[in-house]
Parts: sequence; C-alpha cells; structure tokens
Amino acid sequence: MQMNPNKDTRLCISLSGRPGNFGLRFHNHLYGQLDLNYYYKAFAAQDLAGAVGGIRALGIRGCGVSMPFKEACIALVDEMDPSAQAIQSINTIVNTDGHLKAYNTDYIAIAQLLRDNNIAKDTTFALRGSGGMAKAVASALRDGGYRNGLIVARNQASGSALAESCGYSWQAELGQHRPHMLINVTPVGMTGGAEANDLAFTEDAIDHADILFDVVAIPSETPLIVRGREQGKQVITGLDVIAIQALEQFVLYTGVRPTLEQFEAAVAFARS
Amino acid sequence: MQMNPNKDTRLCISLSGRPGNFGLRFHNHLYGQLDLNYYYKAFAAQDLAGAVGGIRALGIRGCGVSMPFKEACIALVDEMDPSAQAIQSINTIVNTDGHLKAYNTDYIAIAQLLRDNNIAKDTTFALRGSGGMAKAVASALRDGGYRNGLIVARNQASGSALAESCGYSWQAELGQHRPHMLINVTPVGMTGGAEANDLAFTEDAIDHADILFDVVAIPSETPLIVRGREQGKQVITGLDVIAIQALEQFVLYTGVRPTLEQFEAAVAFARS
Repeated sequence: MQMNPNKDTRLCISLSGRPGNFGLRFHNHLYGQLDLNYYYKAFAAQDLAGAVGGIRALGIRGCGVSMPFKEACIALVDEMDPSAQAIQSINTIVNTDGHLKAYNTDYIAIAQLLRDNNIAKDTTFALRGSGGMAKAVASALRDGGYRNGLIVARNQASGSALAESCGYSWQAELGQHRPHMLINVTPVGMTGGAEANDLAFTEDAIDHADILFDVVAIPSETPLIVRGREQGKQVITGLDVIAIQALEQFVLYTGVRPTLEQFEAAVAFARS
Repeated sequence: MQMNPNKDTRLCISLSGRPGNFGLRFHNHLYGQLDLNYYYKAFAAQDLAGAVGGIRALGIRGCGVSMPFKEACIALVDEMDPSAQAIQSINTIVNTDGHLKAYNTDYIAIAQLLRDNNIAKDTTFALRGSGGMAKAVASALRDGGYRNGLIVARNQASGSALAESCGYSWQAELGQHRPHMLINVTPVGMTGGAEANDLAFTEDAIDHADILFDVVAIPSETPLIVRGREQGKQVITGLDVIAIQALEQFVLYTGVRPTLEQFEAAVAFARS
C-alpha cells in the first residue's frame, strides 16, 4: 500500500464469494515497497454484472476473479488473452481506458512452475479433480507438451470431458496406476474441509511417485506434501501457485516486475 | 487510512468530474487516527449510473457526490434524507446492506455554521449566486428562520426561482442595498477562475456589512474574506463549509464522531 493516497491513486480489487487476505496483503505490500500509487481492496460480491459495470464506470485498474465468477465473467469482458481463452476461465481482468482484457494467471503460473521445476515432458502423471482449477492445470500440461496423463475424477461427465479436451485418459479411481507425478486439484487436505487430514492419493501411489504437486494453498503443507517432503521427493505446492499467479497479476496491473527478493518478501508478508 | 488493510476493510469513495485531495486526505487521516478499518478513494467518473451500480454491487459503504452529479443522482438512490430532499441535491450516499440513502451535508454544514456563529434570525443578507450550492445555502437560511433575504444573480430564471422557493426577493445586482450579511456562492475569488482576484461584492457593500460568508474553499482566504478580516468583521469561510460537510459524511459512514481536536487535526492534514 502506498502510504500517501491522493486523487491519482489507482485501485485494484478482487471479486469472490469469500474473500481472503493473501492477495490484498501481497499487492499492497509490493505497492509500498515499490512506491507505486495503488491500493488493493478485496470485495465479496454477488451481482457480478453490476460489479464489472462498476469496474468500467469507476476506472478500477485491475480485478482478480475467484470462485464462483471465473466462467460467468467471460460474457462481461471485451477481450480474452490466450491464457483465459485456452480454458474458458478468467481469474484476472485488466482495465485499460475502459477496455477490459481477461487473463488466467493460474494457467500462466502452472506453466511456469512446470518449466521452473524442470518437469520432463515424458513424465507420466495423474491429475485428481475436474473443476475449474483442474481445467487450468490440465490445459497447462497439455500446452506444455505433457502427453502421458490420466484424469482421476469421480464425476464421469466432467472428468471424461476434461480428459478428452486435453488428449488424456480418464478413470474414476487411480487403481493400479503408479505415475511419476501425482497432482491434486481437489479440496482434499484443505483447512476446514471434510477431508482436511486426508491424503489426496493412496500411500502406495505416493510412495511410488517422484513428484508431488498440490494446488491446495491453505495450508500449503497438506498431508500429501508433508509425506512427499518426508521422503525427500520433489514437491510443488499451492503456495507456489497462488504466489506466482498473484505476481503475474501484479505485473499486468502495474507494468512493474518486482525482483525475486521483493517477490519472496511479499509472499512472506502476505502469509503472516 | 488504516495501516493494515484486510478482507474486512470497508471502502468509501467520491464521484466527481474533477477529484480533489481534501476529502480523501481528511477521511483517510481520521481512519488512521481512530483505528477504523476503512479506506477512502476519489474517483473521476463519467458514467454515473454505472458508478452507482458499482456502489451497490461492490458494497461500497459511502460515496461523496460532487459536480456535475448532485442532481442526476436523485433517480439512482432508494431514499432521500430531508437534507437532500429540501434542495433536490445530493452530496452524500450511505449504503446500508444495499439500501442507498442520500443526504446533503453541505446543507447540514451551512445550517450548523449559522447556529455556531450565532447569526441572529433578523439579520438582513444578500446571497450572490443561483447554482446548486446557492440552493443549499438559501434553503438552510430559509429553514433556519432567516426571512430578510435577497438573492443576487444575473441569471433571472434561476435567480428568481431560487428566491421564490425560499420566500426571498431577487435582483440582478445588489444596487443600493447594504445588508448585514453578504454571502458569496459564486466562483468569484476561486483559484484558477477568471475572477480569482475579484471581490464578490463592491467595496462599499463590504465595508457596510458586519458578516462576510464565502463558500469558496480554494483558497478559503478569498479577497472578500481577506478584506473582511482586515476590518475585523465576522467571517465564515468555505473551509468551514467543506470541513464540516466532510465531518458529517464521516459520521454517517462510520457512526463515529471525532473529537474537536481530532477534527481540527484532520482539517489541517487535509489542507497540507
């Protein structure tokens, strides 16, 4: 947060059903560190069309979009970046002089994490889940050239549709498969959920895998990640995902890319 | 400004054609002093209906309304407080769970200044001007029981209409009248205007008056006020008006009334 707001201060916001603190703390901290005249405010919204109309009318610079608005937003923007087009899901809107362009920085973050972690293209993987975030992860894998995928989802309709759209196979359960990489894109392991203390995959499947990737961010040390760390396996956490997607939003809104040190300090602040 | 924004931070805004810094500095300073979890942002808006829709959809708590939106807003709110109803002009919207109630704290501030300055009810006065703010001042005088008024306005249509609505007389020029109180509600004396260095009334009329009241706030030391001070007359300035109207907005938005000391410190900060 810039400490001396004035009439030229620009506003960025988030829209979600249940706002959290991570994004607003991350962005406001970096505004202060980089002396940018911006302020970030999280909103709980119900009337999405009215809220997007407000973004236009008030000249709000940027907007993070969370559940349950990621698909409904599509009809309300002027342009879709390939990151949002690829998965028909929006998590970021950038307002440039009234023109609203939509992005999906979750997709961008997943793609970057696959690169940064040097995940080999021939890695076999199972992705559990078939919701909006599963679509972002599966599409980033597909577009990254990963071909040996299995979608695991109890919901046959959404699971098989997601698998088909990415050229992967689908099963209701993992069964006897023992892929190199296990990816959890369900609420298993999330604080407050019914399965907060559960592993997203069987112990045997985990023990046979080399790479564990969990998009759950609260906590980012899920039972799956904890077990993987204990065994010295490569892990990618939900904190990595939300931090990088927030960073990419920050760059889109401000045009400024923080240093790695500034980025890591902002993540630490946002979690504290 | 509250220094640690979180997901529960409430937003108040202003809508105007050309935002200034006074209001946002006044409100944010008091939020910080009183440790209230609010943030105030000034917006330049063009699409008023979209902006008010955004206030509803985003749950923005309060909104200051300036030129040129004070009348157009009436059709967009749910309820008119008597302060706004009396003059058919809005400068404040309070959003309580989606219900928008409109006020005019200019009217409230004028009425309070007349009381606080012990202006006798039988004071003869001339009010120069016939725009929206002139309506607020004249109505507050009328409702305060001041009956000996003259509206001075070159525009006969708006001037005589305003006079008639308040039971005052109208003249295009002050002429030979020498009232006790002279009130300027025109841009004469305002920085940047064509008449920035002019007196709003003739020297002779000023010298014969006892009380000089100018609503021009930038600067609040207009030629009219300066001449009055030099002669030791009673003066009421535009700074008094904008400060008290902002204070009443603050109370409406937060439910908290600052102490006189806190109020004066906020005014000093907002002007600095």
